[in-house]
Amino acid sequence: MPRNVTIKEVAAAAGFSYQTVSKVLNNQVKVSKQTEERIWKVANEMGYHPNFIARSLRSQRSGMIGFSWEPYPPDQTNQIYSHFMESIIHYCENNGYHILAFPYKAGSEWVDSYRNLIETNRVDGFILTSIEREDARIVFLQEQNFPFVAFGRSNPEWHFPFVDVNGAVGMRMVVEHLVSQGHKRIALINWSEVKSSSVGIDRMKGCMEALNKAGINVPAHWIARGEGDFAFAYKTSLEWLDTDPDLRPTAIITFCDVMAIGVMNAALNLGIRVGTDLAITGFDDSPQVQYMVPSLTSIQQPIWEVGCKVSEMLLGILTGNPPANQAILLEPKLIVRDSSSQPCNSS
Amino acid sequence: MPRNVTIKEVAAAAGFSYQTVSKVLNNQVKVSKQTEERIWKVANEMGYHPNFIARSLRSQRSGMIGFSWEPYPPDQTNQIYSHFMESIIHYCENNGYHILAFPYKAGSEWVDSYRNLIETNRVDGFILTSIEREDARIVFLQEQNFPFVAFGRSNPEWHFPFVDVNGAVGMRMVVEHLVSQGHKRIALINWSEVKSSSVGIDRMKGCMEALNKAGINVPAHWIARGEGDFAFAYKTSLEWLDTDPDLRPTAIITFCDVMAIGVMNAALNLGIRVGTDLAITGFDDSPQVQYMVPSLTSIQQPIWEVGCKVSEMLLGILTGNPPANQAILLEPKLIVRDSSSQPCNSS
Repeated sequence: MPRNVTIKEVAAAAGFSYQTVSKVLNNQVKVSKQTEERIWKVANEMGYHPNFIARSLRSQRSGMIGFSWEPYPPDQTNQIYSHFMESIIHYCENNGYHILAFPYKAGSEWVDSYRNLIETNRVDGFILTSIEREDARIVFLQEQNFPFVAFGRSNPEWHFPFVDVNGAVGMRMVVEHLVSQGHKRIALINWSEVKSSSVGIDRMKGCMEALNKAGINVPAHWIARGEGDFAFAYKTSLEWLDTDPDLRPTAIITFCDVMAIGVMNAALNLGIRVGTDLAITGFDDSPQVQYMVPSLTSIQQPIWEVGCKVSEMLLGILTGNPPANQAILLEPKLIVRDSSSQPCNSS
Repeated sequence: MPRNVTIKEVAAAAGFSYQTVSKVLNNQVKVSKQTEERIWKVANEMGYHPNFIARSLRSQRSGMIGFSWEPYPPDQTNQIYSHFMESIIHYCENNGYHILAFPYKAGSEWVDSYRNLIETNRVDGFILTSIEREDARIVFLQEQNFPFVAFGRSNPEWHFPFVDVNGAVGMRMVVEHLVSQGHKRIALINWSEVKSSSVGIDRMKGCMEALNKAGINVPAHWIARGEGDFAFAYKTSLEWLDTDPDLRPTAIITFCDVMAIGVMNAALNLGIRVGTDLAITGFDDSPQVQYMVPSLTSIQQPIWEVGCKVSEMLLGILTGNPPANQAILLEPKLIVRDSSSQPCNSS
């Protein structure tokens, strides 16, 4: 690697004092426009580049944003976080910050990683995801008075900067769509209440409110809550569907795409035509659901926009320009596909 | 944020000189075990933490590894890179390095990002992915003599440290599996030669060698090369399959899962039973293919292991212990599922 040109060398070549050149190259002083241009011209010609480490020592700022996320098992998709990460890297880099990606750890060990990065001056702020209802990281960072912005909400009594997608509105769109197709016998599959994050609670709330508003009563045994995975959704829907067509649900709402895929497989195994005899909806609009046969209706979250808003808010806080609104809810979008595009054919 | 305890304060409290305490806390000197323990005990009790920025200035090392990847479009899956990234973050963090994630840029602008990170002392080395056959980043980093390790191969005449998955072996496994099921009329869908990376070339080579060895001649019009996406695979296979069952292929090998999904959809639209009348294979074992009906046979890459090996090699180079073998090829695994598990039923 070529040696860096020093400020001293630039000063000698440009014919100005070390002090003047140093201050110009570090944007610390106003000199005449002519002097400034002359110094920068010489510096650029000589290949001068600011030394990040030396500059950090002076400013005690690292220019780094810490980011960590809870990984999915390798046999499950995790499109949301890949896309979110790309958007925050894009936004932060375009605004002079780099992303330091550090690993997820279970429980309180995760907080230790945050603590360590703060104590070693590694980062200037954090972007948080996978927010839990009583998130220990939020408690810790607020105690430390250390800058962060969250993708997601937590305990509603806590006040901290966040951007989130309005899952309740997404579920309302799903319910209104199904009701407009004539569905009355609607069943739901959600995560268990114990496991449920604020995400699950928010979606459930929107769902129940919209069903009540439409005058649709969902019997308790048609509200399943469990692991939130393929196997649970498959087993549950198999039991619901393996009965008289006039008694079984005509539509099943799931709270994430992989559960919807479980329901599709159960229907297929029973010879029930998805899209004709049974409507199914997912949530997240994962890349694969467009290719399913039939293709799956789902809710698309504006992930790129969330990432940009989170980054913008954090960088505003770091540079002393905090935005007035630090609680942003973005609206998702209903993507209707073949799994629910036909009117209900059962009375 | 609480103020950091200084070495001076630790020295005063522990009753040793500044020089001794500084050297012990920076692991720069051997003192008696008793002295060392006493100093660390006091330092820990007082909440002393090394200041990364100050330490970096002394060592001119950042403790950071730069990583960037070419994103997929948001409507496509990118499981490989999510998983790879998790593994390098895991390995590097466990060995005292952080990952600096920076954005992909098209063409030579990407090289500028690498240059900038080197010139600002941001990173000590790079992990490269999405390697092209004549990769400008490899040329640049070798010119700069800057440490890096690649996930993937490039121009075979270039010598640089890499870890890759043996795609040729993966394809040989696919061919041998299909041949053992009695398939003789086999067709292939690959990326176009122009677009093809060393990945595509490697897989094609393994495929053709295994077919030749099995005495199977693939007619030229059954070797399709195109965009490597759903639409191209769908259109191509629809043309092949929409003919007399005794003339059409009994097996179609694709070079990535999304192409296999395109073929499955084409077969379904023609009423051809996948797994019974037609065998289909993919590559990458994306999370969704286990849930397809029928589930898809695919090749699983040992991505976690690749990430660990790449990181281990780079950290070895950075710490002056370069491994003897800097060209590692790992073997993938064939996962046989319903799309190809039955013997060929056509003569």
